[in-house]
Amino acid sequence: MNALHFSRVVIVGVGLIGGSLALSLKRAGVVGTVVGVGRSAASLERAKSLGVIDEIAPSIEAAARGASVIVLCAPVAQNFALLHALEPHLEPGTIVTDAGSTKSDVIMAAKTALGDKVAQFVPAHPIAGRELSGVEAALNDLYLDKKVMLCPLQENSRADVAAVRAMWESTGAECHVISAVQHDAVFAAVSHLPHLLAFALVAQIANAEDASMKLDFAGGGFRDFTRIAGSSPEMWRDICIANKDALLRELDTYEAVLGHLRKQIREGDGAALERVFARASEARLKWGAARNAARNVEP
Amino acid sequence: MNALHFSRVVIVGVGLIGGSLALSLKRAGVVGTVVGVGRSAASLERAKSLGVIDEIAPSIEAAARGASVIVLCAPVAQNFALLHALEPHLEPGTIVTDAGSTKSDVIMAAKTALGDKVAQFVPAHPIAGRELSGVEAALNDLYLDKKVMLCPLQENSRADVAAVRAMWESTGAECHVISAVQHDAVFAAVSHLPHLLAFALVAQIANAEDASMKLDFAGGGFRDFTRIAGSSPEMWRDICIANKDALLRELDTYEAVLGHLRKQIREGDGAALERVFARASEARLKWGAARNAARNVEP
Repeated sequence: MNALHFSRVVIVGVGLIGGSLALSLKRAGVVGTVVGVGRSAASLERAKSLGVIDEIAPSIEAAARGASVIVLCAPVAQNFALLHALEPHLEPGTIVTDAGSTKSDVIMAAKTALGDKVAQFVPAHPIAGRELSGVEAALNDLYLDKKVMLCPLQENSRADVAAVRAMWESTGAECHVISAVQHDAVFAAVSHLPHLLAFALVAQIANAEDASMKLDFAGGGFRDFTRIAGSSPEMWRDICIANKDALLRELDTYEAVLGHLRKQIREGDGAALERVFARASEARLKWGAARNAARNVEP
Repeated sequence: MNALHFSRVVIVGVGLIGGSLALSLKRAGVVGTVVGVGRSAASLERAKSLGVIDEIAPSIEAAARGASVIVLCAPVAQNFALLHALEPHLEPGTIVTDAGSTKSDVIMAAKTALGDKVAQFVPAHPIAGRELSGVEAALNDLYLDKKVMLCPLQENSRADVAAVRAMWESTGAECHVISAVQHDAVFAAVSHLPHLLAFALVAQIANAEDASMKLDFAGGGFRDFTRIAGSSPEMWRDICIANKDALLRELDTYEAVLGHLRKQIREGDGAALERVFARASEARLKWGAARNAARNVEP
């Protein structure tokens, strides 16, 4: 047996993110039994038949007994109810963590729902995804060479934080510690706003009278720009609302930038327009090259 | 020799698009000599040393003698001056065409600059690109399985339109005929607006105080959404201004859609937000699946 071993891991929400974590832990050989909890019995049965989970539990509280780690992977709006149901059944030795894209909201939910037991909750967020949702989209290498953000609480023990870090590192991910406030500001800008913008563009085109012609001739730029618009509507609904303050701040700035660009286009101010585009192009190419160099993947 | 053969092809603007066309025609074996014209002598020398072009001409008018086809591949704002310089030297048997992302503006420029000789100008637009610019980024298969939009003029001869179509088909592309007005409306929505939005997002992040932290933790969603923000600032400056009417119309609609989403987020109206996201997600997944089925490539 590995020095690192989680005898009983409970995955709450066995979709793309939770299912990929289960498969990754199995691949790494660091897990005994994976227990799945979820809203859809059919989806849990599929997860079991695919070998993603070993057992199905009817609820988070039913799954709590003897759990080494409980990982919340459901859309983030469900976290409070889940933690509230869990609290009376949460055993002292169990670590609770999550995989949500927002952190301030889940910390607030955990403090309220868990009370003193919040010390057992280590907030985390893997930076990985696909435009496909559901357990069928789960991959055993989704987290390989990806980043995982850890936002440990003052209340957490060093050992619990180290265990959560080790769990993610066993999947091939690289962990970074950041405050929840910084986390939410960073991801509002680099993830939540782009998702909102991509959903908005595709909705606009899909609702146009000439939608079918537009979609017929859309090319590679559209494909990449809108890939994230195929993501789970429920998950992103929850993220946008959970991180609304930071997201609306980024959206304010974005609308101001668009307003400047609109004026420059209307007035034919090519020099100003080119300065903005050049700033963006240079930053994006530099980012791509650095990423490429660091990870040997396509920019 | 092929039934299809262009003895002397002049590429004006030997960058990604023009250079890839030259390489593709050479690969297809349908071209004799490729002559390059451009603003930068150093760049033309590089194109020649890379085997993209065979000869360098000092200007479009100097390149005109004996040309089978002259292809305008420079940023679109240069087209009027190029065609104006070309007109006195344009021989009766030569076809002029272009590869610009906007069509109404180039047709206006061609009618004004070429007068009666506009019959020799066949407007075209290959739907292909990369986030990299310049002749070093040119590929001999850039147009393989890509679409090329043709916007023939009433004045064009059938034979000239057929020759331009055949030229693009020899690169592996598939040609579609569309009116210039429809073309510009479609590409304002599916290409020009997404480029503007991607440039705006990267400029915003690059200008943020915590830019380096944001860029450090940006993941795959950011990568794909912003790939097109690495494109040529000058080329996209010209496109945005050349197609400003259609682009500003799309931008108006987009800002209205964003305004609705902002309100839904601020008010925590998850149901409305999810409806918009679901509409987009369904449309994008359907589009990706259809494209996948038709072309056997990743959605």
